[in-house]
Amino acid sequence: MTRQELITLIKRKRSFLCIGLDTDLDKIPQHLLKEEDPVFAFNKAIIDATHELVAAYKPNIAFYEAYGAQGWQSLEKTIAYLKGKDVFTIADAKRGDIGNTSGRYAKAFLEVLDFDGITVAPYMGKDSVGPFLGIDGKWVVLLALTSNKGSDDFQMIKTGNGKLVYERVLERSAEWGTPDNMMYVVGATRAEMLSGIRKIIPDHFLLVPGVGAQGGSLEEVAAHGLNKDCGLLVNSSRGIIYAGNGPDFADKAKEEAQKLQKQMESVLRDAGIC
Amino acid sequence: MTRQELITLIKRKRSFLCIGLDTDLDKIPQHLLKEEDPVFAFNKAIIDATHELVAAYKPNIAFYEAYGAQGWQSLEKTIAYLKGKDVFTIADAKRGDIGNTSGRYAKAFLEVLDFDGITVAPYMGKDSVGPFLGIDGKWVVLLALTSNKGSDDFQMIKTGNGKLVYERVLERSAEWGTPDNMMYVVGATRAEMLSGIRKIIPDHFLLVPGVGAQGGSLEEVAAHGLNKDCGLLVNSSRGIIYAGNGPDFADKAKEEAQKLQKQMESVLRDAGIC
Repeated sequence: MTRQELITLIKRKRSFLCIGLDTDLDKIPQHLLKEEDPVFAFNKAIIDATHELVAAYKPNIAFYEAYGAQGWQSLEKTIAYLKGKDVFTIADAKRGDIGNTSGRYAKAFLEVLDFDGITVAPYMGKDSVGPFLGIDGKWVVLLALTSNKGSDDFQMIKTGNGKLVYERVLERSAEWGTPDNMMYVVGATRAEMLSGIRKIIPDHFLLVPGVGAQGGSLEEVAAHGLNKDCGLLVNSSRGIIYAGNGPDFADKAKEEAQKLQKQMESVLRDAGIC
Repeated sequence: MTRQELITLIKRKRSFLCIGLDTDLDKIPQHLLKEEDPVFAFNKAIIDATHELVAAYKPNIAFYEAYGAQGWQSLEKTIAYLKGKDVFTIADAKRGDIGNTSGRYAKAFLEVLDFDGITVAPYMGKDSVGPFLGIDGKWVVLLALTSNKGSDDFQMIKTGNGKLVYERVLERSAEWGTPDNMMYVVGATRAEMLSGIRKIIPDHFLLVPGVGAQGGSLEEVAAHGLNKDCGLLVNSSRGIIYAGNGPDFADKAKEEAQKLQKQMESVLRDAGIC
């Protein structure tokens, strides 16, 4: 999906919501366990109930790998089902390796599975990210400032020129791609830092996790992070997909997604974007 | 596998060689393509020919994921086969995510697949690494200084206190685990930097990629990196597994492994370790 297609999609749906599919057999409604593929059955129900309200879905690959080859099949079915919907898709895989190995991950997620984007870790530098950037219409979503406590350990280290490590990551990596093929992960628990980040990368899309279960506020994220094209995908996972735990779990998920979509619509209208 | 068991294994085999199983259908001998599972058939032949000469194997997970659910099955068969041999096993996965997601990766690789260790990226900090450290006899192999060109981009940035980012990663992360459950990835193309690294972490095992195809020298690695328990696992992938491309590919792989094992035996004898 191109940048313009993504922007058009956000305006049409009046939503920049991304739903994280962190599908866990211990947390899904127990009546689904009798299905042949409970993980896919859960995802399909969530997607059917919410896809008109969201811009993107983000399967969290760890949750599928935890179930081995069977989990991989659930992932294949989920992405195939998503391809029939009008949504952007992100493999939340946080990969990154030497060039020929990153090339393999790029093939696995962006070609074979055909995700629109993949989250990538920056630690190994340019040649670890490059292989994900060479495919038309596909995106790198690079970790910059994450929403967990451990982000203080290295991302926030002050470097010799006074800038923090995550700022150096933004500056340097922005030269590797363009706003047409790179986004950045910036945690919502650091919403006030989005203003500084927007000075370094005014045009890039930001994938913002941490709204909801991790405590971030949508209003703050929008106040500091919105740009003229929206430029945001705000993710919520557990707060939506586990909103209910009975036979009506998909309706409950829809209700939660709708609350966020309404807030987003208001944000987009106020900014004159839709 | 415990640290003492690993040291005993290295002394008994007189080898600290790790073979990387970067198994690629485009590179394996073409007669194997008629097998039901060519990836596993190749791995089994390589393992049969070399396991007496090596301390460890390191399947490169990207190469399996590139083949989807089928690739995951090849990986499952490979690790099951390795568990019957007297070797240490490392999932070269370079994972790392927020706590509950890292917990899923830990389950996938260290419990379900039952690898002894997994490579982990440090960018997201302590809580992204912690879930891999909580399992008895299992190891985190943390990226510190990698062997690719892109390692200059962030790992070599000078920080405010004069130390480089990778040195801060070593110092900080050494507090999270112990030499009994953590190793570090240190590229062989930087062998002279191993002396400085040994001042920060004298006792930890180092997994050293980049010998062979990437140009690193075993002698230099040993001169700068060996400690009293050996403390090294030196990896070679393509230089061994693709040494031949005909029906005798496993014999060719064995010859290359034997050359390295002989050099390692000499290093260990000279140091009085075996």
